[in-house]
Parts: sequence; C-alpha cells; structure tokens
Amino acid sequence: MRKFGIIGVGHVGVTVAYTLVTKGIADELVLIDKKEDKAISEQLDLQDAQARLDTSTIIKIQDYSELKDADILFLTAGKVDAAKETGSRWAEFEYTNAIVKEVAPKIKASGFNGVVIDTTNPCDAITQYLQKSAGLTTTQVMGTGTFLDTARMQRVVAEQFGANSKNITGYTLGEHGDSQFVAWSGVRVNNHPLVEFAKQQGKDLNYDDLEEEIRKGGWAVYKGKGYTSFGIATCAVKLAQAVLSDAQFECPVSCYNEEFDTYIGQPAVIGKHGVEFVNEIKLTDEEKAKLKNSAETIKEKFATM
Amino acid sequence: MRKFGIIGVGHVGVTVAYTLVTKGIADELVLIDKKEDKAISEQLDLQDAQARLDTSTIIKIQDYSELKDADILFLTAGKVDAAKETGSRWAEFEYTNAIVKEVAPKIKASGFNGVVIDTTNPCDAITQYLQKSAGLTTTQVMGTGTFLDTARMQRVVAEQFGANSKNITGYTLGEHGDSQFVAWSGVRVNNHPLVEFAKQQGKDLNYDDLEEEIRKGGWAVYKGKGYTSFGIATCAVKLAQAVLSDAQFECPVSCYNEEFDTYIGQPAVIGKHGVEFVNEIKLTDEEKAKLKNSAETIKEKFATM
Amino acid sequence: MRKFGIIGVGHVGVTVAYTLVTKGIADELVLIDKKEDKAISEQLDLQDAQARLDTSTIIKIQDYSELKDADILFLTAGKVDAAKETGSRWAEFEYTNAIVKEVAPKIKASGFNGVVIDTTNPCDAITQYLQKSAGLTTTQVMGTGTFLDTARMQRVVAEQFGANSKNITGYTLGEHGDSQFVAWSGVRVNNHPLVEFAKQQGKDLNYDDLEEEIRKGGWAVYKGKGYTSFGIATCAVKLAQAVLSDAQFECPVSCYNEEFDTYIGQPAVIGKHGVEFVNEIKLTDEEKAKLKNSAETIKEKFATM
Amino acid sequence: MRKFGIIGVGHVGVTVAYTLVTKGIADELVLIDKKEDKAISEQLDLQDAQARLDTSTIIKIQDYSELKDADILFLTAGKVDAAKETGSRWAEFEYTNAIVKEVAPKIKASGFNGVVIDTTNPCDAITQYLQKSAGLTTTQVMGTGTFLDTARMQRVVAEQFGANSKNITGYTLGEHGDSQFVAWSGVRVNNHPLVEFAKQQGKDLNYDDLEEEIRKGGWAVYKGKGYTSFGIATCAVKLAQAVLSDAQFECPVSCYNEEFDTYIGQPAVIGKHGVEFVNEIKLTDEEKAKLKNSAETIKEKFATM
Repeated sequence: MRKFGIIGVGHVGVTVAYTLVTKGIADELVLIDKKEDKAISEQLDLQDAQARLDTSTIIKIQDYSELKDADILFLTAGKVDAAKETGSRWAEFEYTNAIVKEVAPKIKASGFNGVVIDTTNPCDAITQYLQKSAGLTTTQVMGTGTFLDTARMQRVVAEQFGANSKNITGYTLGEHGDSQFVAWSGVRVNNHPLVEFAKQQGKDLNYDDLEEEIRKGGWAVYKGKGYTSFGIATCAVKLAQAVLSDAQFECPVSCYNEEFDTYIGQPAVIGKHGVEFVNEIKLTDEEKAKLKNSAETIKEKFATM
Repeated sequence: MRKFGIIGVGHVGVTVAYTLVTKGIADELVLIDKKEDKAISEQLDLQDAQARLDTSTIIKIQDYSELKDADILFLTAGKVDAAKETGSRWAEFEYTNAIVKEVAPKIKASGFNGVVIDTTNPCDAITQYLQKSAGLTTTQVMGTGTFLDTARMQRVVAEQFGANSKNITGYTLGEHGDSQFVAWSGVRVNNHPLVEFAKQQGKDLNYDDLEEEIRKGGWAVYKGKGYTSFGIATCAVKLAQAVLSDAQFECPVSCYNEEFDTYIGQPAVIGKHGVEFVNEIKLTDEEKAKLKNSAETIKEKFATM
Repeated sequence: MRKFGIIGVGHVGVTVAYTLVTKGIADELVLIDKKEDKAISEQLDLQDAQARLDTSTIIKIQDYSELKDADILFLTAGKVDAAKETGSRWAEFEYTNAIVKEVAPKIKASGFNGVVIDTTNPCDAITQYLQKSAGLTTTQVMGTGTFLDTARMQRVVAEQFGANSKNITGYTLGEHGDSQFVAWSGVRVNNHPLVEFAKQQGKDLNYDDLEEEIRKGGWAVYKGKGYTSFGIATCAVKLAQAVLSDAQFECPVSCYNEEFDTYIGQPAVIGKHGVEFVNEIKLTDEEKAKLKNSAETIKEKFATM
Repeated sequence: MRKFGIIGVGHVGVTVAYTLVTKGIADELVLIDKKEDKAISEQLDLQDAQARLDTSTIIKIQDYSELKDADILFLTAGKVDAAKETGSRWAEFEYTNAIVKEVAPKIKASGFNGVVIDTTNPCDAITQYLQKSAGLTTTQVMGTGTFLDTARMQRVVAEQFGANSKNITGYTLGEHGDSQFVAWSGVRVNNHPLVEFAKQQGKDLNYDDLEEEIRKGGWAVYKGKGYTSFGIATCAVKLAQAVLSDAQFECPVSCYNEEFDTYIGQPAVIGKHGVEFVNEIKLTDEEKAKLKNSAETIKEKFATM
C-alpha cells in the first residue's frame, strides 16, 4: 500500500492531496495542519469527491503517529503573503522556519523513515534545515527546488518555437529563488542545442529576458491568483511517484551538494531511497560561477536559521 | 477533439480546469474570468504543470468567440463570501445573478451550441435563468444541483456502516440549498434498503440528523477552507465526461421539471445532448411533498431574478 | 510500494499486467509462467512500453521468492482450448488442477502472505483448492467468479434499455459456469427494480433468454477471439485496487460460503485483508434453490480434485 | 468528441482499443476486421470491461461509413506468422499489401479526412502505399516506424546504466526493419552524450551488439509470445493523443522524406494535422549513409507493390 503524509494543507498541500486522490495514486493519506478546522474541511471535501471517483483513498488527519509507516511525506507549509511585499521567497523564511522548528521534532518522534519532498520556501534552506532537524539522511530529504523553475524554463523556451514543453530538456539550477539561473549551454529544443538552433532559425533570443521571465514565473502566477499551486503540485507528485516505483528518474531537485556543503537545485536521480545520487553535468565556467554564487546565497541565509 | 470552456476561474473553475488538464480529458480549454489577471495566472500555472504531465492541453483565455465550437461550457462563477454571513446559497444570488446577466448574452453571441454544466449558486435558479437567457434548450443546460448533495449523502451513510460511498445508491433531491431532502425510501447500502437494513443491524439512525449533516456538508467544508472545490469539481467533470461519451449515465442533476415548471435536483440520464430525459422515480407521499415544497422555494426565488 | 505477482502470463495474465503497468497502478510486478520464454517476452514488451508512459514499474520474472512481500497475487493460469471442445469451463480442470498442484507449494514456500485473486477455471473449485493447498485463509483468497458474469448481466440488461451498464445493479450468483444464475429479484435499472420497470415500460423480457446470453457471454467472446481477456482483466484489477486501498468495496466474488462449505460466487465486501465479509442478501426461494444447486455442482466437482 | 477507427483487430489493434477504452481516451471507437466474428467478440469483451470502468466508450463494428467523422484511424492489420519463417517484416508484405489494396478504397469512399496511424508491416512501405491509395496527404498519414525501435533503444541503453528509459533521448532511424540504425551520435543518457559518458564511466559498450539487440527487439518479444503488442500499442496511442491535442510533440515516426522520396523513420513534429513537419537533425556522415541506404531498401521494396 502507498501511504503519504502531507504537513501543511494550504493551496499546494491540498492540490497534492487532490492529485493523489483523484488519480488513484494514494491508498492512504494523512493530512496535518496547524489549523485543525482546515484539515477537517479538506478531508471532508476529498471524501465528498470519492463517491464520484473510480478509486478509493483512506484520508486521516492530524495524527503524527500515522507517519510511522508512510512512504512519502510532503512538507507543503508556507505563507505566500509574507513573500508578497518583498517579492522574495526569503520573506517567508521567518514564518516557515518557525513551522519547521515545530514539526521536525514531531516527524522525528513519529518514527517516520521514508522520503521527504519539501515545497516550503525558501526551499533549499528549509529543506536542509528539515533534513538535519528531523534526523533523516540527505538521501531521504529533497526539495522540489528548481524542478519547478525548470518546468517554467521548458514552457518559456517552448513558446519561442511553438514546441511542446515536454520536448525541451535542460535545467534551471541553483536556488529556488533570485540567484537561480538557466544552464543555457545544455538546453535543447526538439533535440537541437538551443543556442545554435535559435541562430540557425534566425531567432534572436534575449537570454537575460527569458531567464527573467522564468525566474519571475512564480510571481507572474502569484500576481493573478495570490499563490501558485498547479505547477508545484505536479512537480511534487512526479517526484513521489519516482520514489515509489524506484524509477531511477533523472531530474533537477534541491538536494545536498558536497562541494558547496549545502542543499541546492541540481540534477539528481530519484529512486526508492530518495536522492539516489547527484547527476554531475557539464557547465560552462560562467554557469559554474553562477552555481557557486547561488550556493553561497543559500548558505548565507541558512546560517541565520 | 474535446473542447471545454470555463467561465469563472475561482476555486471551482480552476479545480475543474486542473482535473481536465492533469487527467488528459481536455484537448482544448478556454478560461474566462472577469479578472483578466486571474485568468492569465491560472493559464500560466496550468502550463507550468504540463511539462510534468503525459498529456497536452491547449489553454486559451478570455475569448468568448472560442466557445463557438466548444463541446462543454462550465459556468463556475460565484462569491462564496457573500453566502458566508447568512449561511444560505441565496446570499450569492445578487452577485451571481449579475454575472449571468452579463455572460449569457456573450455566450449566445459566441454561437456556442454545446452543453452547459453550471455550478453557480443558487444553482437551480441560476441554471434556469442561464438556460433562458442564453437561448439554449433545457436539454442543453444542467446544473450540478444535488449531484453533490447526493455524494455527501453517500459519504454520510457510508460512514454509518463502514461501507464504501460508491456502494451507497439513492438521491438527495430538490434544491441545492436548504429545502433539499434525502429520499430515504430509495437509499441502499451495499444493495440493502437502508431503513430496513439499519434496523436489522440494530442501528438506530436519526435520519433528521443525517439529513442535516448532508445539507450542511457544504458549510462544514466551507468552515475550514473558506470555499468548497474538490467534491463539486469531480461532480462537474463526471457530468462532462458523460456528455462527451454519450454515456446515457443516470444520476441526479439540476434540470427542468415539467410538473413544477422549474429547474430542480432530480434523477436524469446524461448523454451527448445533455439531459436526455428525466428519470422518474418512486417517492413516498412525504417525499413528494418535500419535492413540491422545494420546487416552490426555487420558483419563488427565481421570480425575483 | 505496491507489489503484485502474476502466475500464468497467458492472455488474462498479461492483460492484467498491461493494465497495472499502463495505468501506473503497480510499482513492482513479478511475472511467472511455466514457459520461461513467454515470461521473458512479456517482460520485454512491457518494458518497451514504459518509455512511452508517464509512470514506471519494475518488472521481474520467474522468481517465486519475490512473492514474499507482494501485496497481491493473481493466479491467471488456464488452457481455454481445453474448454473449447465441450463448451464447459470444467474441461480446463485437468490442466489447471495440475498447475495449481504445482504452484501452490511454491506460493506457500515463498512466504507470500497477501491476497490472492484467482481467475483460473473452473474458478470456484480451483480457488478453493488453491486456498487450502497454499496454506492461506479463506479471507485471503478470492476468485473473480461471477464478478465477470455480473458485468455481462449489466451489459445485457443495459442494452435492453439503452442504459449505461454502470447504472445496472444486482448480481449473477453461483458457479462461474453453467449452474450460475441471475438473481433477477434484485436487479435494478437506473434505480428501478428491473422486473417491475420492464413491465411498466411495456417491455416483454424473456429472462431465460437473457440469462442464457449472460451465461454464454464468455463463449460468445471466445468464439471470435479464441479466449477472453478484457472483461476478466478489468474485474481482477478492480478487486486488487479495492484490497490495496482497503476500500470495503462491495461486489460479487467467488469466496467461501459457510452454509454450503464451498467457494461460490456471492456478494462480499473487499478490503485490505481480502474478503472482509460475505454480504448476505435477500433472495427469493427459487433463487435460493438455484444457489444451493450451484453450490452442490461446485462441491461435486471439487470432490474429484 | 474523440472518435477513433481501428482496421485490423489482431493483437495490436485490440491492445490499442483496450488502451483507448480503459484510459478513457476514446469517446467512440469503430472496429473493423476481415473476420466479422473477431470484431464482434472484441466488441463484446470491451463492453464487458466497461461496467468496471469509470468512463464510457461507444463501440461500433464493421462499418466503414462511421469513419467519415473519425479523428484518427489506426491501421493495425498484420500476419506476424508470415514473418516468422524468414525473420523479416517483409515476409508480411504479400499479406498486408493485399489488405491495404482492399481497405484503401473503402477508407477513401468513407470520406475519412482525419489522421492515419499505421502499424502494419513492412511499416514504411505500407504506410506510403496507403497514403497514396487512400487519397490522403503525406501530412495526414504516418506509420509508427522507428518510434517503437527508439523505445527499444531507450530500454537497451537504460539497462546499461541502470537508468530510466524515459531519460534516454535520441533516435533509431530508417526502416522499421533490418536496415534501421541507431544514430548513436545523438543518444543521451540522463542528459549526457552517450558515447562520451560511457567512456567516462569506464563502460566499454559494443554498439554493434546493442544495435543488434534493438533491431531484433521485436523478434525477442515475438519468440516467446508469438507477436508483439504492448510496446507498439503504447507508441500508436501516444501519437494519437499528440494529434488530438495538437501537441506539436516531437518524436520519430515513419513519414515522407522529400530528399529520398519515400516514407522512412525520422524525427517529426506531431500535431492536429498529423505530421506537422520533419525535424531535421544532425547526423554524422556515417549515419547519413545509413539513412540513405535504408531509404533505398524501402524504395526498392515499395517498387514491387
């Protein structure tokens, strides 16, 4: 049986829950939130949905002890409003840091020994803090990190060529935040190296503008709806599925980087243990410098936790 | 190709959209909202999700002319906050009535000639008003009505017996509102008539309490999350799928009742034309009286539109 | 993680496997067949498919020790050709009996302690024999039995009314074989009692003819394609899903009947332990006699095993 | 509504049908076969399955006139036994050529104007012949071609690295037959160029052996099961979904190559019109020579049709 826990049933958490339930992915689901009435309401709404679905999922709430035998735990807390004023995910830090300080010991006490997928912002620092404080290994704990920013890169590049975003490969790397960058040297469009292909097609791309559009993708979504949910939830669910089926699936996530001694968005291979290994890729010297800079940004902030 | 329109991309509308996209149901989707920036943000968020999905959906926004060849149009406008103060869906009336007055002529002008599925409250009256003002037939226009309240009945009854809600049959009928009622005489649990079976099992059920729990199911969900979305969206999507595959699928919806000359929640058969026919079922005299009373309640309110 | 074993990768077994893989239901799958080259080929074909799917499944073959931690084991052996000549599923008995005699000790030795779903014919007798010889409880072992014949009843009745087969409730009961019967007294069409409704609609149904069409449904499929696979595989998968999600899902299956001391097709509730309990339903005296007769037929044949 | 036709309900055709039905992809499906009793049986088996599914599909048989408004037509005829003796797909030619000669005028007469996806062997020649004789454009008609051989390449390469086949990119090109080849220069493993990466990992790959394993992948599957079905069906369905959602999805298919004036397996972009355009990729001189040679092989055989 596939058992999932979700701590934090805000917009991201419930979209993950809805996806797991409506696609028949979860056999059992445990919802936990600071606000008990929120958890109760989401449980009810998901149960109402089940009479109309082909599959069934047991939905429990507010019980940390249920995490003991969970396969996957999503941490999806957040306070996007806090980020609004400054336009930086670090603005959520004070709030989410307090949450992690509160929930990490409870996760530890539950005996949970599965894989954690964290969407909480500032993603890289919070994920690392959670890993340490919940007494789990770096293999077991990952953040969605730049997996989402990579999806945005795929969307933005695809639009330039009328292509399908699934046919865009490559990575947004570094912090799930302002210091992130696209490793343009490795981006490919329908299997053509982007930079070369764009020239060949006579397309004069402004990579700085594209990168800005990608980096600000979350804010563009936030602007009209007040939060982001669909992109991030599908990323989180995809990682969870890779763990459950031991898929050895390669994609960028926020995980521990030995060289920089920090969590950071980088390509890795996901399997039943979580982050099976980091997939070291070729970067240009400029990209390496950007990665280093991004790592330092994350570490600096982490030091304040 | 399956083409859907959604007018009103609030919580219900976007959950419908997310379901259609993530389950690969929609080939093309048109999102329309009073707030253009909301529509833009939802489009972006759904596009971000697509790099992580196996299927593709074209997502357009804010263009009524695109409805011309749409198969299904969801009307999912609403202002649940308005309903909060009074605890009645009629409190949304002023707001949603204005919306329908605004969008109906635009739907008409678009040349749309498919099937409308309406979730807007007060559902029965708004659906009827929309049907008339958009120049569509009663066959083409249905409301989710008590299809959702029936799901809640299935949940509430299932809980009493540790059963699966999919194994509870029967109906909540009448208004998608306070005058609704459960036709207990026809409810079945694992194929046993409920009332008889409960007695046999020595279960002393208080049907008034159960009915109240069902009737107030929406408010219970609302209480903690501030709106309802998952139950209603799965109901709306299920109806849409029945239309597209001409499924002749029987279930309760809000549709036109000749005897009472009003839209009301009643069993019907859904196929490619929309509401293929009303499925007349046996009711006790008491249940008949409740249906009549509920119809009068709806008509009374409708008269004020 | 969801782990499944399949013993017997003929048409039914591989259709179950294909369904589990393509719908992302299985995380791990173990295929076992007398013919090793058949298992190898099916493994290869399923692996070829995975590059085109969104989900991943680990596929292992020919290793009984892998069943130790499997959740579900399908027994899908069979030799439909043997049944061809006589038009009776009992003709497969000699062949399938030998298979079960061979595999039961291996299942036992593997330490398997999950739930068995058996599609092998003659289904009721083989399932019972397997249950006893594999050292498993009657709770843990079920046959698809008349779940498939009930699907055929739903199809045949639905066609009479232009209804959707999902809106037909009721049961085909007894042997998954010639002595089976439809409990017409409990069949419902769009929530109307069938017999009464047909009269009311002026439809003069010949129930013997319908029953014969249902009973011979397997042969009708067999006639043109040489085997049956799709109906039976979807039934088997649905039961497996009910077990994994502890769904407490009610439906007819072949399971142990205390009164008759035999496995037989009867309504039951399926959950994580397998057959959670038999759902005793009301039958007319004539139907009771048919069930008794069917039980005796099964027992008689079982005695020869 | 999504409407599909399938001509030839052998193993491939029915697996496509089962996939379209069980995944809720098709609203309407038309099955056509030389053997009417086969079509009837498959229709029945698929209908039996539907009582156990969440979605509905209308299934019609043996009526060419129903193709008039179909979106997609699969041609899945074949006689794999014919190929057995020689180990070459060309051995099916005599049989399949006769089938296409028979069905092409019927397709034309039906007024079908959608997209054809052909799996019939020898795939490239038959697809081209069908295109010409059915009076359809080269845009409208594609064969699965080396899309399947590419899936096999992905599987074979993935196995070498313990990777996920979805993370292997690149192409098998040319004939869906013996003259096919892998364009190794463009194959990538977890985003690393294969050849370079293998060296770096100290893996001494024998590319000729790998290519032989890929080329003979169909025969390896055939050897144990007597036909191939799952890999090819998932390829065909994926192409169909790309057409329906106008996905602009890039992948290798058999389509018309202007330079060589023949159908051949090459990268293309699939959208609502079918093959939107050929995606010209970089090949080494050796690979170019292989493609030319493969094209000549196809043309030679085509000339004999």
